[in-house]
Amino acid sequence: VLAVARSDLQPPRGTRDFYPEDLRFRTWLFDVFREVSRRFGFEEVDAPVLEHAELYRRKAGEEIVEQLYHFELHGRHLALRPELTPSLARMVMARQGALRWPLRWFAIPQCWRYERMTRGRRREHYQWNMDVWGEPSVTAEAELLAAVFAATDALGLGPADVRVRLNHRALLEETLRADVLADRPEAFAPLCVIVDKLDKIGAEAVVEQLADPAGPVALDAGAAKELVARLGIRDLEEAARQAPADSPAVAELRRLFELLDAYGVADRVVFDASVVRGLAYYTGVVFEAYDAAGSLRAVCGGGRYDRLLESLGGRPVPAVGFGFGDAVIQELLADRGLVPDLPRGLDAVVYPLGEEERSAAIRLARRWRAEGLAVEIVLGQGLRMRRVLADADKAGARRVALIGPEERARGVARVRDLASGEEREEALE
Amino acid sequence: VLAVARSDLQPPRGTRDFYPEDLRFRTWLFDVFREVSRRFGFEEVDAPVLEHAELYRRKAGEEIVEQLYHFELHGRHLALRPELTPSLARMVMARQGALRWPLRWFAIPQCWRYERMTRGRRREHYQWNMDVWGEPSVTAEAELLAAVFAATDALGLGPADVRVRLNHRALLEETLRADVLADRPEAFAPLCVIVDKLDKIGAEAVVEQLADPAGPVALDAGAAKELVARLGIRDLEEAARQAPADSPAVAELRRLFELLDAYGVADRVVFDASVVRGLAYYTGVVFEAYDAAGSLRAVCGGGRYDRLLESLGGRPVPAVGFGFGDAVIQELLADRGLVPDLPRGLDAVVYPLGEEERSAAIRLARRWRAEGLAVEIVLGQGLRMRRVLADADKAGARRVALIGPEERARGVARVRDLASGEEREEALE
Repeated sequence: VLAVARSDLQPPRGTRDFYPEDLRFRTWLFDVFREVSRRFGFEEVDAPVLEHAELYRRKAGEEIVEQLYHFELHGRHLALRPELTPSLARMVMARQGALRWPLRWFAIPQCWRYERMTRGRRREHYQWNMDVWGEPSVTAEAELLAAVFAATDALGLGPADVRVRLNHRALLEETLRADVLADRPEAFAPLCVIVDKLDKIGAEAVVEQLADPAGPVALDAGAAKELVARLGIRDLEEAARQAPADSPAVAELRRLFELLDAYGVADRVVFDASVVRGLAYYTGVVFEAYDAAGSLRAVCGGGRYDRLLESLGGRPVPAVGFGFGDAVIQELLADRGLVPDLPRGLDAVVYPLGEEERSAAIRLARRWRAEGLAVEIVLGQGLRMRRVLADADKAGARRVALIGPEERARGVARVRDLASGEEREEALE
Repeated sequence: VLAVARSDLQPPRGTRDFYPEDLRFRTWLFDVFREVSRRFGFEEVDAPVLEHAELYRRKAGEEIVEQLYHFELHGRHLALRPELTPSLARMVMARQGALRWPLRWFAIPQCWRYERMTRGRRREHYQWNMDVWGEPSVTAEAELLAAVFAATDALGLGPADVRVRLNHRALLEETLRADVLADRPEAFAPLCVIVDKLDKIGAEAVVEQLADPAGPVALDAGAAKELVARLGIRDLEEAARQAPADSPAVAELRRLFELLDAYGVADRVVFDASVVRGLAYYTGVVFEAYDAAGSLRAVCGGGRYDRLLESLGGRPVPAVGFGFGDAVIQELLADRGLVPDLPRGLDAVVYPLGEEERSAAIRLARRWRAEGLAVEIVLGQGLRMRRVLADADKAGARRVALIGPEERARGVARVRDLASGEEREEALE
């Protein structure tokens, strides 16, 4: 009767179906994100998965923009969101005068990128975001980093599993703008995008791209080499010696480490001059959480983006946030054997032996459901008891309530505990 | 520094941002859907919001297909899902041999339709779906209808607010295929799609479309009029008199009403011959829940679609399900004054009077958060006490813990209960 074509019945390449066991994992993970966010006093928000592509038009060469999932529809240029931050910025702008500052917002959006599927990476992922809008000081960064560790702790990962490296973009910017980028502040964002590729493409290629005279940065080769050499610094005091004496960035980093100490997480955080993150809009502290064993991509990344709202036409509002994806953390938990066994939580299966008993079975299920139990009623007719019991056991049900003609006549159900095998009778009314 | 164009900073037409208060409502609503589903023993699933457009290619003239949000991308024809059922069918087919039958699946997908925005309707909504796959008997329909009412009950709506009308497509099909559609079974689905518009376009227009010789149904005018007259039947026994004596559809409807009686909801359900629903793939019982005051569109709609899997190339699997959107129910709750006050649930605001006290404040917040409390730390510096208290009160915080130099020296926080105004001291360690 139907005219459905039989064709590609797989989910689109790079996307996932969530069968019950996949969804249980997702729910468990999201519950951790939500519970940590709640304890930190953050409020959940969301925005459309579809946005005007315009919202993401940035010219710094970012991977996230180049991989935009975008298309024309009825004369509109639309995109599936690759990240939530621009949507948040839009929302903040729309109510800038009517919000309680600072905003503490979190979200768990699904984000999309159109990536050639060469590395087995997916085209969609969920990303826990926490953002503080309206607070210029690193008290906000400290809260966010504490929340990241609260989440990894809650997921069962310890200090030996997940660590954070952080840096301050202004450390780099202060130096460069006093010197080689003095006349070209606009080259700083693309410079960061190139530096962010260090791990992936290596020092030589970074120098080459920074020094490319046709590129957006076009440093002279000597300056590019010097810059890349400085990325090797892993000690804040050494970085401080190379920075201007009154560097605000150094002062902020020192203060941030003091605060992280009060949160009890300073020993899991290291300074790393090579961390700049690949988003153009970051302006201050940038950080990433990583698998301490070192084999995976970043578990989470974030930073301060004090000029984003201004760049979209809003009043300036300082802001800082992170994104924590569901993919890398799932790999990491699997590697560590920390993916929990998540049972279905079925309390009872109610089994009418024949259709004569179905009304009684329904009434028992109603009562148990009203008490909050998760109850299946056997919907099929004429199923044999052995099959129903085996099936209930397979589903992890705690008990099976059988109602046959004899039980119905006596106004009871025979209730078997599947773990102990014990049976009792339960009155139907 | 950034190159973001200032242009359309609104969410795309027909879509919504979820600010914290909107998200709290959404969460409350979804929690009801999830809790009802859990009690009925259903498992949550999900599928990509983006699918191959092919999956929705049906030729019955359905609104849902005509309003498909689809586009070409890198040579692929993709669509934002307008409904979840085809994705579920895909998922069932992919694991047809490895699932525990019957499947009891639920989901709360966001679905999209590209609709001209003439009626203030949105282009996206969330839709709670419950589906039973693998059970041919109306025991499944009865479970689903009981779940719909369990949800409306949990939302505070009573029997006077929400009712269900139901019908059986085979009642219509039995008659038509014995007669005017004997040689053209494929005309039945488009016939239902036209009949579904009765409320919207009126009897005359339905007759006209059914009798349009260039249309997909092309009944003769007399047959079309007779059919539309029969849609007025509101009594199952009258419908039974017009049906063949051994009509399986009548028997199923009678049995369904018996089962609904056992669920305690039969008095909220009426037979209505005009209900056919607008989806081509329904084959058996079809139903819709509606606002008893009659002013709104359907709260929920569903039915049996026993041939969908077969039409996609799978082994035949009987199935029945419903979709319950978030839009109409929200309007209905608002109309009835039933949208609950959903407080943020902030337990405490911790307020260091100066930066000297911040470490102590962080430590207190850590302790309370570890106990499960939702705790904000005042992130700004040098805020005045009056402002902090007013702000905490506005946020609905239960208490404010103040730590000034004196408190710090004495190792305590001063904790004010914002409702009673009472103060007590709490030891910091």
